[in-house]
Amino acid sequence: MKVVCIGAGRLAQHLMPELQRAGCDIIQVYNRTDYSAQLLSQKLNDASVLSDINQIAKDADIYFITLSDDAIYSVSILLQLQDINGIVVHCSGAAEYDILPFPKKGVFYPLQTFSGVHKVDWTTIPIIITSDSEEVVSKLETLARKISSTVVEMTDTQKSALHLAAVFANNFTNHILSLAGNICARHNVPFEILKPLIQTTIDNALEHGPSESQTGPAIRGDDRTIEKHVQMLDTHPEILEVYKVITKSIEKG
Amino acid sequence: MKVVCIGAGRLAQHLMPELQRAGCDIIQVYNRTDYSAQLLSQKLNDASVLSDINQIAKDADIYFITLSDDAIYSVSILLQLQDINGIVVHCSGAAEYDILPFPKKGVFYPLQTFSGVHKVDWTTIPIIITSDSEEVVSKLETLARKISSTVVEMTDTQKSALHLAAVFANNFTNHILSLAGNICARHNVPFEILKPLIQTTIDNALEHGPSESQTGPAIRGDDRTIEKHVQMLDTHPEILEVYKVITKSIEKG
Repeated sequence: MKVVCIGAGRLAQHLMPELQRAGCDIIQVYNRTDYSAQLLSQKLNDASVLSDINQIAKDADIYFITLSDDAIYSVSILLQLQDINGIVVHCSGAAEYDILPFPKKGVFYPLQTFSGVHKVDWTTIPIIITSDSEEVVSKLETLARKISSTVVEMTDTQKSALHLAAVFANNFTNHILSLAGNICARHNVPFEILKPLIQTTIDNALEHGPSESQTGPAIRGDDRTIEKHVQMLDTHPEILEVYKVITKSIEKG
Repeated sequence: MKVVCIGAGRLAQHLMPELQRAGCDIIQVYNRTDYSAQLLSQKLNDASVLSDINQIAKDADIYFITLSDDAIYSVSILLQLQDINGIVVHCSGAAEYDILPFPKKGVFYPLQTFSGVHKVDWTTIPIIITSDSEEVVSKLETLARKISSTVVEMTDTQKSALHLAAVFANNFTNHILSLAGNICARHNVPFEILKPLIQTTIDNALEHGPSESQTGPAIRGDDRTIEKHVQMLDTHPEILEVYKVITKSIEKG
């Protein structure tokens, strides 16, 4: 299966080598700037690097757009002018399926956060497939199953909901931990001391479900402790606002 | 070291057997209702069970009040009428050190969430020690070091701050995961699909620090995605309020 990769950012750096291991032939890496594409190409049996979209291969089976949400649409417009016939997919959780202006199109969304350094274990990463075309779904699922053990077809609405849930599960959870670290720092308490509690919190939530694992002053209606916390945060109105809103949300259940 | 345990709830069920293994002699378990005290006593070489506080041993070295915050004070008043001479400690993160009306007093606060079923690994649980008396601090630290590898002395203010941070790290993080599950459920998306992302989120936050690990639409100023999310939550104002406040808090950094 011939693959063209559009973009050479974090996701491409992780995904393309994995697709190559799974037997794909990554024939080109397109990127407006050269450096990261060269870097990626070196991992890919020296796939050719191009920054002129007119030179894009016309005979690839799948074109993977691995760019940021804003860039997906603008590159699609350029790509549309080329005489290509393969499937075009983007890999974004937030961007809609319909923004792709191609007859054969789909979404191939790996639900994970990719950092530059860590090697990721693709078998554990859920891959979400979305397309109106059964043929495209079938081809993308077959490909996804070569690298992941969790491949799920979803409607575009479901994928958007999942992405929103992921913002809570990843970005918001992380920010709440930042605020906990912030409170510790103000009082010269090492954040490290919270680590075993955090790990147990997550273990419980993943094992029993978060709704069943809720504890703390808000769920048991301990107004005295809540009042004390509100007073402690009196001089930090930004953190206090988060405290109040989440406490209210827990109380409502 | 002779220990009397006041209360027979979750914390007592976990802590007392561990103190016994560490060489303490748990001589009595006091509880207003009998059942859970009997249960605990069976784990403790049949420590005697009492529900009449007048029968409490006068010669114990340490009295552990393992009750809920509200009950600590009311039991302290009763205990104060007894002619006891040992150290009295409570184990609460939220309750202040000063609520104990005893000459030799302290706080022995294990920073962990205790469920009924799971066996906990005490060596990993940080134990916070607070007391105005150096002698009490020294005795409590020596005892705590027998069961945990992380024993930290803190002022009462630091302990309160740590407890507040723990409410964020445990209760609030868990609730955010509940909301993620709630969004999934409304769209027939299995919550399980988020598990690898959640585990990576926590791994990154614990390894690199949460401030360094922040990603997502709010931190990169992706207003289009935020606007889309706000629209999706239009019919769920409670979740929308949480979304808006945390997004604003991330943007402020």
